[in-house]
Amino acid sequence: MPEFLKLIPPHKAVSDFLAAMPEIEPGISSIKTQEAEGRVVAQLFHAPHPLPPFSRSSVDGYAVRAKDTFGASSSLPAYLTITGEVEMGKQTDLQLEQGQAIIVHTGGMIPSGANAVVMLEDTQTIREGEIEIHKAAADGENILHKGEDVAEGEELLNPGTVIRPQEIGGLMAYGYTQVKVYDNPTVGILSSGDEVVPPEIEPSPGQVRDINSYTLSAMLRQHGAEPRIYGVVPDSFSALKKAVDQAFSENDMTLITAGSSVSARDITADVINTLGKPGVLIHGLALRPGKPTILALAEGKPIIGLPGNPVSAIVSSGLCVLPILRKLRGIKTEIYEPSVRAVLSQNVPSVSGREDYLPVRLETGSERTTAVPVFGRSNLIYTLVRADGLIRIPAAVTGLTGGTKVDVYLF
Amino acid sequence: MPEFLKLIPPHKAVSDFLAAMPEIEPGISSIKTQEAEGRVVAQLFHAPHPLPPFSRSSVDGYAVRAKDTFGASSSLPAYLTITGEVEMGKQTDLQLEQGQAIIVHTGGMIPSGANAVVMLEDTQTIREGEIEIHKAAADGENILHKGEDVAEGEELLNPGTVIRPQEIGGLMAYGYTQVKVYDNPTVGILSSGDEVVPPEIEPSPGQVRDINSYTLSAMLRQHGAEPRIYGVVPDSFSALKKAVDQAFSENDMTLITAGSSVSARDITADVINTLGKPGVLIHGLALRPGKPTILALAEGKPIIGLPGNPVSAIVSSGLCVLPILRKLRGIKTEIYEPSVRAVLSQNVPSVSGREDYLPVRLETGSERTTAVPVFGRSNLIYTLVRADGLIRIPAAVTGLTGGTKVDVYLF
Repeated sequence: MPEFLKLIPPHKAVSDFLAAMPEIEPGISSIKTQEAEGRVVAQLFHAPHPLPPFSRSSVDGYAVRAKDTFGASSSLPAYLTITGEVEMGKQTDLQLEQGQAIIVHTGGMIPSGANAVVMLEDTQTIREGEIEIHKAAADGENILHKGEDVAEGEELLNPGTVIRPQEIGGLMAYGYTQVKVYDNPTVGILSSGDEVVPPEIEPSPGQVRDINSYTLSAMLRQHGAEPRIYGVVPDSFSALKKAVDQAFSENDMTLITAGSSVSARDITADVINTLGKPGVLIHGLALRPGKPTILALAEGKPIIGLPGNPVSAIVSSGLCVLPILRKLRGIKTEIYEPSVRAVLSQNVPSVSGREDYLPVRLETGSERTTAVPVFGRSNLIYTLVRADGLIRIPAAVTGLTGGTKVDVYLF
Repeated sequence: MPEFLKLIPPHKAVSDFLAAMPEIEPGISSIKTQEAEGRVVAQLFHAPHPLPPFSRSSVDGYAVRAKDTFGASSSLPAYLTITGEVEMGKQTDLQLEQGQAIIVHTGGMIPSGANAVVMLEDTQTIREGEIEIHKAAADGENILHKGEDVAEGEELLNPGTVIRPQEIGGLMAYGYTQVKVYDNPTVGILSSGDEVVPPEIEPSPGQVRDINSYTLSAMLRQHGAEPRIYGVVPDSFSALKKAVDQAFSENDMTLITAGSSVSARDITADVINTLGKPGVLIHGLALRPGKPTILALAEGKPIIGLPGNPVSAIVSSGLCVLPILRKLRGIKTEIYEPSVRAVLSQNVPSVSGREDYLPVRLETGSERTTAVPVFGRSNLIYTLVRADGLIRIPAAVTGLTGGTKVDVYLF
């Protein structure tokens, strides 16, 4: 496979890369449904019975035959005889006949012979055992019919579905207290750089602490990966190769935040190309910050070279690593990226032909939310600490003018 | 304190309730920074030193005196003598004099006497030790100055800040490998209802499985609470009181999904009022689904009565429980609710004076994203399984017309 064109737009790079990736078969584990939030379903569920399993009342009132209430109003009520009460949580053997009403509570089983429920507030007790109906009921009114939510045999959940609170509820409704889910992919993270030291070390003059291993690890964990930090590696081919070989063999994906110099980046690409075929597919994105990103595949496993600057590493990961991670997780559902609508506070410049991501702070006013650019170079981590999200400046434009409505993608 | 007006708008109910809540002092624990993602900072950090701690090059190139490059261009280059190279990760003792250039890599320390860096690509080597400069450098160009990100003594993080990947990076940049965070609030969850059985039990005819305990638990855990499930309680005052007393005494907040009948809801309110003052503050919201919501306070701790219908319970929790949880967590930062912009596929009716939340499914087209209503009664959990998010129909309108642009709040 040839190396793709250099400096391609990030979204195209990612879709090309995802297409080049083989289909993934993640491992499968059975876990407790009640702890499955955020995991990915690995089995197909069919409904073993209808839901609700019996017809239930959706209000407090009287089960009736709808035709017995035909034309009823408060001035011309219908009169019915109360013949019983449905007990909550019990099967009812009561049988409703013409001219009768049976007391039923919300969630109670509809007795045989009834086809509607009149709400309590639309009735009046005349004497013990007899009521007036002040409102006609339509056939089926205030009844949740058996199978109205799910029919027997219907597909409940498909493999590749991300489990949200409602999927947990849906499984519990059928008593599925265990669920098979895909294993979270493991991601090895390396930071290279002769000037980089682990955070617990006091840096000597000229050294800086490793930030990227930890920001990326947190981001990956948020998105369903199991990150593993391999530490800081010097910018030499042999040292980097040894560390990358290990991380690559032990994980489903490998991230390398490259040393920031051009030579260090070249070493990273060279090391990646020793791992297997096809190797580096994309080297450089039409993106700022995040241009020096490498997307590579070896033995079907992704290896991503990220810029060493912390802000670039975060932006590039958000655009490239997270979609790849979704594929590794076995997620089949569409992804939507919600944003906050805001008004840009000032003009911001941009270079045409390159997608720019600009950190912004949000300010809530009485009339509108304003997005205030947090200018700062991509080396500066506190630029992002001070920001609420990013705005995207498309490649086709040369900046945005103040007052423009923008979509702010929160971190 | 008087019971607030009945059926008030949900946002007003929540803001009134938050104002009535006492200030919270959550417990504080020291945890590893690298595991602190999503937790809330409980200490004030000041920068012990500037960041970056020394002036660094942001490119690969030559450290120079800017005035030595004045007017330089490819047709009229400036000529400089290379007198050394800054080693990465080391303090440099090199001193730059007039007419000299020193090789520096990205992230390398700027040598004394230099005030700009010329990028490698704007230079050409003429002979060993001498280069042409093809572009004039401005004072400070391509230098990340000492303290440019953070000045010494500046506030880094405030108590009440939610920790995102970048906050972890910012702490690691200073070697703060431990961070004090607020303890996650514990939330006791009870489900009441004579017809409700735990999910592991095969329901008899007339019974249904408990869903709410598990959907709410998942939702709470997603949002930084420690949920504790107390199980299913019958709809009697004494049984409910016993269970609620225990959950209330053992937790920072208590949620009760009330039995669905009117009498069961009244029992819930009566039980809550036995816990302490002021008791029930809000009973009923101008909201659908979610109207029969109770917001109560006793001994400064919130007790929330939620509707028994699964969809109502989720909607009401999203609007009421989550903001209260944020306060219990000690979060001080503003909350923004991102949404996906979509076009409504069809007319939807609504009643004026009541805020409606409608589940929708998103469909991505080539031109636009469409929000397709998933109609279903609020008792039906699979309505939400089939939906991507909710749209809000404001109280002031009587429905929305197809083609309207809507904000979809993803679950």
